[in-house]
Amino acid sequence: MVGGGKGAFIGVVHRMAAQLDGECELVCGAFSSTPDKSKESGQELYLPSERVYGAYEEMFNREKELPEGERMDFVTIVTPNNAHFPVAKMALESGFPVMSEKPMTYSLAEAKELKKIVDETGLLFGLTHNYTGYPLVKEAREMVRTGKLGKIRKIVVEYPQGWLATKLEDTGQKQAAWRSDPKRAGIANCMGDIGIHAENLCEYITGLHITEVCADLTTFVEGRSLDDDGNVLLHFKNGAKGVLHASQISVGEENALSIRVYGVKGGLVWHQQDPNTLIAKWNDRPDEIIRAGGSYLSAPALQNTRLPMGHPEAFVEAFANLYRNYILTLKSILDGVEPDPANLDFPSVEEGIRGMAFIETVVESSASDIKWTRFKSF
Amino acid sequence: MVGGGKGAFIGVVHRMAAQLDGECELVCGAFSSTPDKSKESGQELYLPSERVYGAYEEMFNREKELPEGERMDFVTIVTPNNAHFPVAKMALESGFPVMSEKPMTYSLAEAKELKKIVDETGLLFGLTHNYTGYPLVKEAREMVRTGKLGKIRKIVVEYPQGWLATKLEDTGQKQAAWRSDPKRAGIANCMGDIGIHAENLCEYITGLHITEVCADLTTFVEGRSLDDDGNVLLHFKNGAKGVLHASQISVGEENALSIRVYGVKGGLVWHQQDPNTLIAKWNDRPDEIIRAGGSYLSAPALQNTRLPMGHPEAFVEAFANLYRNYILTLKSILDGVEPDPANLDFPSVEEGIRGMAFIETVVESSASDIKWTRFKSF
Amino acid sequence: MVGGGKGAFIGVVHRMAAQLDGECELVCGAFSSTPDKSKESGQELYLPSERVYGAYEEMFNREKELPEGERMDFVTIVTPNNAHFPVAKMALESGFPVMSEKPMTYSLAEAKELKKIVDETGLLFGLTHNYTGYPLVKEAREMVRTGKLGKIRKIVVEYPQGWLATKLEDTGQKQAAWRSDPKRAGIANCMGDIGIHAENLCEYITGLHITEVCADLTTFVEGRSLDDDGNVLLHFKNGAKGVLHASQISVGEENALSIRVYGVKGGLVWHQQDPNTLIAKWNDRPDEIIRAGGSYLSAPALQNTRLPMGHPEAFVEAFANLYRNYILTLKSILDGVEPDPANLDFPSVEEGIRGMAFIETVVESSASDIKWTRFKSF
Amino acid sequence: MVGGGKGAFIGVVHRMAAQLDGECELVCGAFSSTPDKSKESGQELYLPSERVYGAYEEMFNREKELPEGERMDFVTIVTPNNAHFPVAKMALESGFPVMSEKPMTYSLAEAKELKKIVDETGLLFGLTHNYTGYPLVKEAREMVRTGKLGKIRKIVVEYPQGWLATKLEDTGQKQAAWRSDPKRAGIANCMGDIGIHAENLCEYITGLHITEVCADLTTFVEGRSLDDDGNVLLHFKNGAKGVLHASQISVGEENALSIRVYGVKGGLVWHQQDPNTLIAKWNDRPDEIIRAGGSYLSAPALQNTRLPMGHPEAFVEAFANLYRNYILTLKSILDGVEPDPANLDFPSVEEGIRGMAFIETVVESSASDIKWTRFKSF
Repeated sequence: MVGGGKGAFIGVVHRMAAQLDGECELVCGAFSSTPDKSKESGQELYLPSERVYGAYEEMFNREKELPEGERMDFVTIVTPNNAHFPVAKMALESGFPVMSEKPMTYSLAEAKELKKIVDETGLLFGLTHNYTGYPLVKEAREMVRTGKLGKIRKIVVEYPQGWLATKLEDTGQKQAAWRSDPKRAGIANCMGDIGIHAENLCEYITGLHITEVCADLTTFVEGRSLDDDGNVLLHFKNGAKGVLHASQISVGEENALSIRVYGVKGGLVWHQQDPNTLIAKWNDRPDEIIRAGGSYLSAPALQNTRLPMGHPEAFVEAFANLYRNYILTLKSILDGVEPDPANLDFPSVEEGIRGMAFIETVVESSASDIKWTRFKSF
Repeated sequence: MVGGGKGAFIGVVHRMAAQLDGECELVCGAFSSTPDKSKESGQELYLPSERVYGAYEEMFNREKELPEGERMDFVTIVTPNNAHFPVAKMALESGFPVMSEKPMTYSLAEAKELKKIVDETGLLFGLTHNYTGYPLVKEAREMVRTGKLGKIRKIVVEYPQGWLATKLEDTGQKQAAWRSDPKRAGIANCMGDIGIHAENLCEYITGLHITEVCADLTTFVEGRSLDDDGNVLLHFKNGAKGVLHASQISVGEENALSIRVYGVKGGLVWHQQDPNTLIAKWNDRPDEIIRAGGSYLSAPALQNTRLPMGHPEAFVEAFANLYRNYILTLKSILDGVEPDPANLDFPSVEEGIRGMAFIETVVESSASDIKWTRFKSF
Repeated sequence: MVGGGKGAFIGVVHRMAAQLDGECELVCGAFSSTPDKSKESGQELYLPSERVYGAYEEMFNREKELPEGERMDFVTIVTPNNAHFPVAKMALESGFPVMSEKPMTYSLAEAKELKKIVDETGLLFGLTHNYTGYPLVKEAREMVRTGKLGKIRKIVVEYPQGWLATKLEDTGQKQAAWRSDPKRAGIANCMGDIGIHAENLCEYITGLHITEVCADLTTFVEGRSLDDDGNVLLHFKNGAKGVLHASQISVGEENALSIRVYGVKGGLVWHQQDPNTLIAKWNDRPDEIIRAGGSYLSAPALQNTRLPMGHPEAFVEAFANLYRNYILTLKSILDGVEPDPANLDFPSVEEGIRGMAFIETVVESSASDIKWTRFKSF
Repeated sequence: MVGGGKGAFIGVVHRMAAQLDGECELVCGAFSSTPDKSKESGQELYLPSERVYGAYEEMFNREKELPEGERMDFVTIVTPNNAHFPVAKMALESGFPVMSEKPMTYSLAEAKELKKIVDETGLLFGLTHNYTGYPLVKEAREMVRTGKLGKIRKIVVEYPQGWLATKLEDTGQKQAAWRSDPKRAGIANCMGDIGIHAENLCEYITGLHITEVCADLTTFVEGRSLDDDGNVLLHFKNGAKGVLHASQISVGEENALSIRVYGVKGGLVWHQQDPNTLIAKWNDRPDEIIRAGGSYLSAPALQNTRLPMGHPEAFVEAFANLYRNYILTLKSILDGVEPDPANLDFPSVEEGIRGMAFIETVVESSASDIKWTRFKSF
């Protein structure tokens, strides 16, 4: 693991998620760019001191020298955005498969570069667009894929939060500080941190690519350098229309990612904060309350569920689904067997490029007087 | 009453709403442009046959000849949109106050003309933007007005329906037929029928005017002449940003008007289908479930409530609140006393003009390649 | 109308409900036992002074002398419980059909006596167990009746309120005062006011009679004379088991009547505060959200609905359904035609007797050390 | 770990929960009474074969011979009920602290015996009444403890499920088979499996002991040996009254444990299936939506939360809270330091005895004609 030292939020989540199913164990880490903090974090994690490194370069150099079976099998990157690319690049070039936090890189250019490296090294790359790990997100995708909703016409995806309604970054809050700092976050804050999840979620569920956008990004909190709110009109490849809005200044909202998809025959609604319920909507018969664990669910939903109905699974378990699929695929590769196609269901470098293209497209659109900006393709 | 004969939807609502509080009684009507249908409708309503007219012109001419105290006190207009203006014009010019269905007229030009007539005649004019009649919509407005939310930053207002997901107008369904017919409905269907309610609701609650829009209207159902879906970015006078989307092709949605308003200090959420609940949202304390009838509500909310908490009031009662306020104001005027300011809370010609301006602005914006279109002012 | 003068709650509801559909008009009343208050109330209701009576005896005596077509067609009784019987008795014996508030009488003995009078006079009698007027309560009944749930096994019906958590009757609040006064309310307060609605609702929906009960009634507020809370175990005729609990001291609860019914094949859930939603529950497929106005509903539900889906109807409209059915039936009788069986769906004297038997049974059971008390039959 | 081999449900949960926070690692197990199945299960869990035992007796005998630091620190018991006592007894007598599934034993007599052994050995004993691990259950408890609700008057606790509405045990379903088998489950099925959780939850939150009950247990599914439904009236020590009902035949219900508590000043509502929301109810101000992770929560709630608001935690995390508290306490004991009082918050032998007393009391009450049966004390 690179990053995720004391005080970090997402590092802890990655550790819980990766180890939840007992298929993986943390064996080493460079948890902070400050060597002492890295050591301290490693100690708290019960790691042997020789596997706790002061810097990621040291970790890759040392680990690759260890005999097979002893060295780490893959690396997880949970640093701020600006370090994603250099760490991933060195990891891959040192022969280590990578599981990376999103956004994949600091810029679209880096993302394209990273794709080349992944292609060249042939190593497995995963990206934790974790919300696609929820079983009912997979059910939603299956509903679209199997035509239950008919041709998709309209998509509304939103991600309101309220935690940055004041200038929290001035209080020393770490999460706020790096996200609103262009040097570490990139050219977008709200769109880069959460808008990108909305983009990924709607493309994952519908299988449709956004083709053009019309964005209106705003920085509401005075003195903040990057956007903290954004409203975006969307056009999709098949003619579908959509709205994406995300916000960090919507007071009282927690982490309210949700999506609604409407086709010619039916619709669906899913809310991240109530993740075990998926509503199927119909015009001529009652809406249905699809529930995680239901015997009637599709294979992809059931395969990503651990508990019976009514025993709620949530954020960590959804996150763990990405890890499980990634790890089982990696294991197959290491064992020289064909990976189970069911396990290939985790975001990778293509999703990473689309995410970076989304960020750059909405920022460009927001600055433009022209209505529609083409989604940056690769 | 003009319009609202057999098979009409909204005429029945107006009759229930107007008479709910026992302050008003239906005394005459021209219920259909077909005299026989008008007669038949009048009979079913237990009206004396001499007060059932074959045409509105006849009604106004005859009624104005009746002695005071016998003739009708005001007229309600519930025809398709294209007749709103000529009927209202003749009513006012015949000396009758008017309560009209929305949109106020067929075009913005007519709306401006009607304002002149209202101003000249000095007669009371009401417009049934009925959703503002809900007590908790009034509470929401009070929350904003009294500064509980702080300066408003973001507004999300939406109005999804699904009933026109197929070409219902081809089946002879009356409601679908006239709404999708440019001759009777005007230049917009979805935006004119329901988008306009969303516009009115957000301006009513926040007291903020929309200044410019960026609209993306679509006709999804093949062969339909007017829009059946629309997504709109909004800019408000004080710098607030917003999203308005409305749809008639969102399968499974009923009449799902809802609004979210976020200020610097707090937020609010209200759904028309669950009208007796208003959520107040805060960052540093629990969200609150404000309920119709609560002893803690503001005067405008309590004055527009008839029943104790937990005895739900709904669509008809909200509609009736507009009528009650209109009628009590009219009564004061007729009695020569100063109307109670609390009773002045009903939409009138200004709201009617803004509604027509909204329709014409979003239609123009949707056809434009330029991002922002100024809201047509008067 | 007898009762329902200034300050009354339920009288207003009856007037709105009775007149909502334009099938009936208030023509006279004895609104208070204080003649002056009755006069004042009548004036506010725009009644001619000669039809506003100082006492119900006077009203019946005078009205029956009026020529047919001029005298009232039926009388509504909205007094406190102790007056229900004498007023109904005199009304019927004077030849007037009756629509009465629940509970039907002050005691079970009176109820049985009233049944005799109804039978003897042959006049139409209605009882406003208003919650059965909701369209989705009728849908629930149809689901059971047509076997969709299979044989019923378990029923949970509850009616929590919180408004009497303190000794409100000492503050002069009229509603609290008479309900907690044994002279006016009878032998039960909570059970007589709301427990009885729960009893009626579960018998209406399931078509099953309660056969024995085990009750635990409590008076939590010091100094109060009657029960303000009660928990009851139920046995039903077909072997089904149930729980009924009602409360006036459940702080924060409004008027939260709800019912759950489980059969061998399926279940259902309905909440009065969200009356336009009925959940159908299944083990092997998703639960369904049945909504008022849905095209898929049964005839009894659709016949008791006025507005399209998503245009919520509520308490007054449900109440009005009882009146409409009663009035249309009465009209058929007066017209000498066979009443439409669909219109016979309103509570009458049988339901009234069961309600009074419920009150007396639970009070007896609560005082007993024996577990099960037989439901008092007639 | 004893039990929890292939096909078991709860064993997997224990493993995820125990290891979630990285404070504990599975080192050995006797996963099945069939040695081959135990071996196979151990292999799948990546355990070294010498630590996978064919029987629990063998495990305790061998493990206690291992040097300190190598042998297991405590044992988790996840067998069917009938094995809880013998395994726990031998574990404790072999010097191993115990974390056991509920119900604690097969009978109340065994429970009392176990208490003696725990007292004598002085070893740490935990019981996985996991629902008390939810942060908002702890918040609810704090609300009561700090007097926010005032003196408690009424408690409604319910646990409906529907999975045993048919004779699932005849299909070979393991979970159904042992729960409905008196030899393995004890004298109650529904009450022993889930009623006991309801009892534990209400006593945990309110701090009140049940003093007497009136129970009506039923076996609805023909041929089943034990209860599959039960309704119980409750009396509490302070005069509070309550209702507890639990069911396995409530078709369509998943795992719908919920509780409502009403005091003189306020109320609360919590649902296990929506565990991150707790409603506080008030008469004179809006109800509040208390949410997991809120900065305004009490210390016990925040200490048992891992993620920020809106990042839902659920069943496994609540379960893990019990383990974390147990393990951190055990660690303090092993390290010879005073355990942090905050970590002592996990169910133990007292709760286990009350649970067994509950089972025996409701079974006795259900068979009795006398209304109230005293809760069996120790």
